Amino acid sequence: MTRLEILPIEGLPEVEPGDDLIGMLGDCGKIKSLDILVVTQKIISKAENQLVEIDPNDALSHKPLVEKESVRILRRRGELIISETKHGFVCANAGIDLSNVERGQAALLPEDSDRSAQRLRDGLKGRYDLDVAVIISDTFGRPWRRGLTDVAIGSAGISPILDLRGERDALGREMQVTEVALVDELASAAELVMGKSAGIPVAIIRGGDAEWNGEGSVREDLLRDPKDDLFR
Amino acid sequence: MTRLEILPIEGLPEVEPGDDLIGMLGDCGKIKSLDILVVTQKIISKAENQLVEIDPNDALSHKPLVEKESVRILRRRGELIISETKHGFVCANAGIDLSNVERGQAALLPEDSDRSAQRLRDGLKGRYDLDVAVIISDTFGRPWRRGLTDVAIGSAGISPILDLRGERDALGREMQVTEVALVDELASAAELVMGKSAGIPVAIIRGGDAEWNGEGSVREDLLRDPKDDLFR
Repeated sequence: MTRLEILPIEGLPEVEPGDDLIGMLGDCGKIKSLDILVVTQKIISKAENQLVEIDPNDALSHKPLVEKESVRILRRRGELIISETKHGFVCANAGIDLSNVERGQAALLPEDSDRSAQRLRDGLKGRYDLDVAVIISDTFGRPWRRGLTDVAIGSAGISPILDLRGERDALGREMQVTEVALVDELASAAELVMGKSAGIPVAIIRGGDAEWNGEGSVREDLLRDPKDDLFR
Repeated sequence: MTRLEILPIEGLPEVEPGDDLIGMLGDCGKIKSLDILVVTQKIISKAENQLVEIDPNDALSHKPLVEKESVRILRRRGELIISETKHGFVCANAGIDLSNVERGQAALLPEDSDRSAQRLRDGLKGRYDLDVAVIISDTFGRPWRRGLTDVAIGSAGISPILDLRGERDALGREMQVTEVALVDELASAAELVMGKSAGIPVAIIRGGDAEWNGEGSVREDLLRDPKDDLFR
């Protein structure tokens, strides 16, 4: 690979429930075949109308939603809940988001982010003949390290994990690192041009390796089975 | 920001203990002022001679080293140990690496990766008048999600965390996400062009935001204090 480019898509309109994201992206004139599109959860949740009314005067009114969206509470501290969502993600407050939505609303995660990614991919191919991979990203915390990073919560047309088993390192030894979380690294890379306060919801990653093409889903391939997880 | 570029530095020689990394990078002709250099732990550990002899015929001969480099064992399963290293990192096998080193050797983490980053930054400035930020990266696993991602274990000339507190989102609401783990996202982005089996140990990130400039260190700013950590 000679270079990877990460390009923000600026100037997209605010997304409203029912909006045609495929048309919005297909018409923006910036996307080429073989691009990887990274789309934030927020606009997917809005377009899919995953919005819930909450009491705008009660800072805790989304908390019952967190419990409802969770299947397993891992930790609580004060108002913070770390839980496993019904989709299988482990994150704070079940991924429910209060920023970049109207006051009095909360945005839930998409029902099935892999399917959302697949629909976008299929729509851009069908209506615009654009052959792109799609990653849906969200911003999660993690143990042990401060700060948040963007990770993938859905994908289509790309291998969620690069499996290097059997490959050799530069000195001919079998690789110790065998599985790279490709879509998470791409989601983090895309966040760098989105700028949380600039509100850019889509980025293009251009120049990726042909080996990255593939099928699979975040939920099936990237989420660790709770029984294999040392921290659940 | 209009675009971010990620460029692998190809053609660097194998690094040996005592090698002059500053000279190697300064002479490669590819680095410009304002670039962010992401350098893998492996070549830092090699140049700083953090290599230890192990029995090449005993697959477990590095295990006593893992215990020695750790201050707290978090989990064990079979041969896998997740521990907190003496530097404060939580990772598998205390970050000790057997790939891309000679048979019979193991590479320990650098003694102080932030200082290693600072030395590289200062050296490139002093000897080549190149004003770059430096991130030392390593490949770590994480709970809940399969696969590994590259994260920062040291940095210089860049804010490890972007603090967005007080900033407003696109709809004027105060930001919910307040701290972005900038150097971890940059480390992940750089990994995408390094290719584990290609053995490219340094990447350039070009086009970064001027707001990213800053001081601070990974150990001081990015590692969560164990007493604030819900999973330790």
